[in-house]
Amino acid sequence: MLLARDLALDIQSGRLSPGDLMARCADAIAEREPEIGAFVTLDLAAARQQAAAEGVAARPLAGLPFGVKDIIDTRDLPTEYGSAIYAGHRPATDAPIVTQVKRAGGIVAGKTVTTEFAHLTPGRTRNPRNGAHTPGGSSSGSAAAVAAGMLPLAIGTQTGGSVIRPAAFCGVVGYKPTFRTLPTLGMKTFSWQLDTMGLFGARVQDVAFAAGAMTGRALDIGAERAERPRIGVVRTARAAQASAAAHDALEAAARAAEAAGAQVFTLDLPEELEAADAIHGVIQDFEAWIALSDEYDHHRGALSAGLRAHLDAAVGIGVDTYDEARRTAKRARQRLGDLFADVDALLTFSAPGPAPEGLGATGSPMFNRLWTLMGSPCINVPGLVDGAGLPVGVQVVGRFGRDRAALLVAALVEQAIAG
Amino acid sequence: MLLARDLALDIQSGRLSPGDLMARCADAIAEREPEIGAFVTLDLAAARQQAAAEGVAARPLAGLPFGVKDIIDTRDLPTEYGSAIYAGHRPATDAPIVTQVKRAGGIVAGKTVTTEFAHLTPGRTRNPRNGAHTPGGSSSGSAAAVAAGMLPLAIGTQTGGSVIRPAAFCGVVGYKPTFRTLPTLGMKTFSWQLDTMGLFGARVQDVAFAAGAMTGRALDIGAERAERPRIGVVRTARAAQASAAAHDALEAAARAAEAAGAQVFTLDLPEELEAADAIHGVIQDFEAWIALSDEYDHHRGALSAGLRAHLDAAVGIGVDTYDEARRTAKRARQRLGDLFADVDALLTFSAPGPAPEGLGATGSPMFNRLWTLMGSPCINVPGLVDGAGLPVGVQVVGRFGRDRAALLVAALVEQAIAG
Repeated sequence: MLLARDLALDIQSGRLSPGDLMARCADAIAEREPEIGAFVTLDLAAARQQAAAEGVAARPLAGLPFGVKDIIDTRDLPTEYGSAIYAGHRPATDAPIVTQVKRAGGIVAGKTVTTEFAHLTPGRTRNPRNGAHTPGGSSSGSAAAVAAGMLPLAIGTQTGGSVIRPAAFCGVVGYKPTFRTLPTLGMKTFSWQLDTMGLFGARVQDVAFAAGAMTGRALDIGAERAERPRIGVVRTARAAQASAAAHDALEAAARAAEAAGAQVFTLDLPEELEAADAIHGVIQDFEAWIALSDEYDHHRGALSAGLRAHLDAAVGIGVDTYDEARRTAKRARQRLGDLFADVDALLTFSAPGPAPEGLGATGSPMFNRLWTLMGSPCINVPGLVDGAGLPVGVQVVGRFGRDRAALLVAALVEQAIAG
Repeated sequence: MLLARDLALDIQSGRLSPGDLMARCADAIAEREPEIGAFVTLDLAAARQQAAAEGVAARPLAGLPFGVKDIIDTRDLPTEYGSAIYAGHRPATDAPIVTQVKRAGGIVAGKTVTTEFAHLTPGRTRNPRNGAHTPGGSSSGSAAAVAAGMLPLAIGTQTGGSVIRPAAFCGVVGYKPTFRTLPTLGMKTFSWQLDTMGLFGARVQDVAFAAGAMTGRALDIGAERAERPRIGVVRTARAAQASAAAHDALEAAARAAEAAGAQVFTLDLPEELEAADAIHGVIQDFEAWIALSDEYDHHRGALSAGLRAHLDAAVGIGVDTYDEARRTAKRARQRLGDLFADVDALLTFSAPGPAPEGLGATGSPMFNRLWTLMGSPCINVPGLVDGAGLPVGVQVVGRFGRDRAALLVAALVEQAIAG
């Protein structure tokens, strides 16, 4: 995999040029893309041209190439939202997150495969660790492009588990920042209270570096790690649905973190949080029926049968049910805030297990949706594998708005697992 | 003015046809529009065709024609956001709020004038009460179209004071619901924490009826009024900047409400709320610089000098300042929630005075921005005038999420003023 932060430092210090890096990516893409199918659109010629522009090497992102999930608007490349309804669609503007990449000196090399409207119906991407398995969704192409070493960084989005799950399945770092840390404008909305931008990279320090450069926030942790953090291991009421491999990985990560100095203990989720987990779908689907109302009313036949049925069911969710779900979420956010008085981060499953076999489904967000609803910063930490060699990730969940602290704990866990 | 709720009932009971109403609007538009300039685009032929369609009369909005502020995407009419950058722009979809109008049986008759990107640079609209005065902004055309009797209902948006202020200046009801009660997707974002959809109509019951029909919420108050509500009269730390006419109107409205049975008392805003008022601009401008980043980076020369200077200044707002402003807003929301334990609604200025003379500026949002930041439901209640006969509105502010209660108090104030 390509190590974004090291590559940026190499370029900034003159040991590497943006053009050389772009050529390296182009080679990797030529080799791996035919088998993996991570991209909807590539424009390597334009990317090479931008890499050759004056002054790129000195900028924060030093000309690093990015993949951008094709649920996010770009002015220079078509944006199809994973739907035939938008075949060839050309947005008028870049989404602000794309402008943030460009302003910081990053280069958009291509658009990556998303499931239909970032929901469940898969695209064509294969898992780079084993092509017979799903890469996860909905940010399938972004996770796969980084995992295959085709790009150092990619942008995805998460409404249920669409950053953490594909990161876990592909064996890369996925970082879903605190809600609204990265702007969601200019992405095709599914649920405005849940949709969250995220980043994929090889290591925790790589996504931290990129997020810092894009936002101007003090997120670039370099080689720093959390010291003696208090880590609560959370298995949730859904623990029985996690596979033996997932339990083994969580246990191994907890023991490794403990050996590296963390104070590790088991933590049961308060009932307010389990209640919030149960109503994620109410909020998501009520809002999806509004967000996709134009497509539902004018292009229903061009929606997948799965999404159509999902939206048909959402019509029946009343405003009272929705309002009650929002109150449940609010109570849970307050309870979670209290809980973080006694803990620095939570450690939990990233997914029920390794990537399922087959490309017809993208796996379950059951261990992600609560944290999306809470707006908490989440990081998938890779490094562990199951008996068949497939990646099994673990998830670090931080306190709302304390992303640097969460990244530092994730970096400790990452190092502990590797060591 | 056209009374939306009465017209809908007339249509539903067969006393009037949607086509007759559309013809009446077309006549009023032919008469008043040349002098007022409320519309960017009109398509009365299409509106007439939709009014003639089978079954329209039986639907909740009964074929009532709407004006839609041209900051909101429409699939059938160009959407230019008040900016030359978007001349002739055709969005791919209707904004969800437009779909809500259509689903409920309303008809979009035209797009109404907005200031540039719903900020301060005015369009060409004149105040229907006195053409030498501003109609207010940024929802200039929507307020003017309803005030001139050209349409019964119109949609606007508010980020600072862009619904309540033009409603006050034009002498119509403006209703800014609780934040996110009406979906903001598909409008050109200025600030995602502030942008709020709102409605204009002749009477409180008209906007309440429309909002109920569009959202499925129990907002249609009919002839109901609040009974003996506790009303806190709030003059704020900016009271000295309100004109004598504004003070007279607030006092007159308070006395009339009291005579109609309300329990009226003076209420000083807690310091947490005055602090929040002071940082509205930090949140608005930090987010505007992100939201308009594509236009800023690619079309800077096509922005007005005023907006360009505003965004230039916003570049200097750091993330720490922004985060502190968000914490200030959060504290104020909690404090305001506590305050509503002892009061049913607040009564305050809608604007510093009647519409200023001239079309070069749209007036000040100084008595609106705090309530936008709090997400509170607000209603401009018209009916009072200054010595020159210009409308002077008063503003009812309700508790977050309790829109029906706020509308009932506003209806009481409206009736008290009229009586």
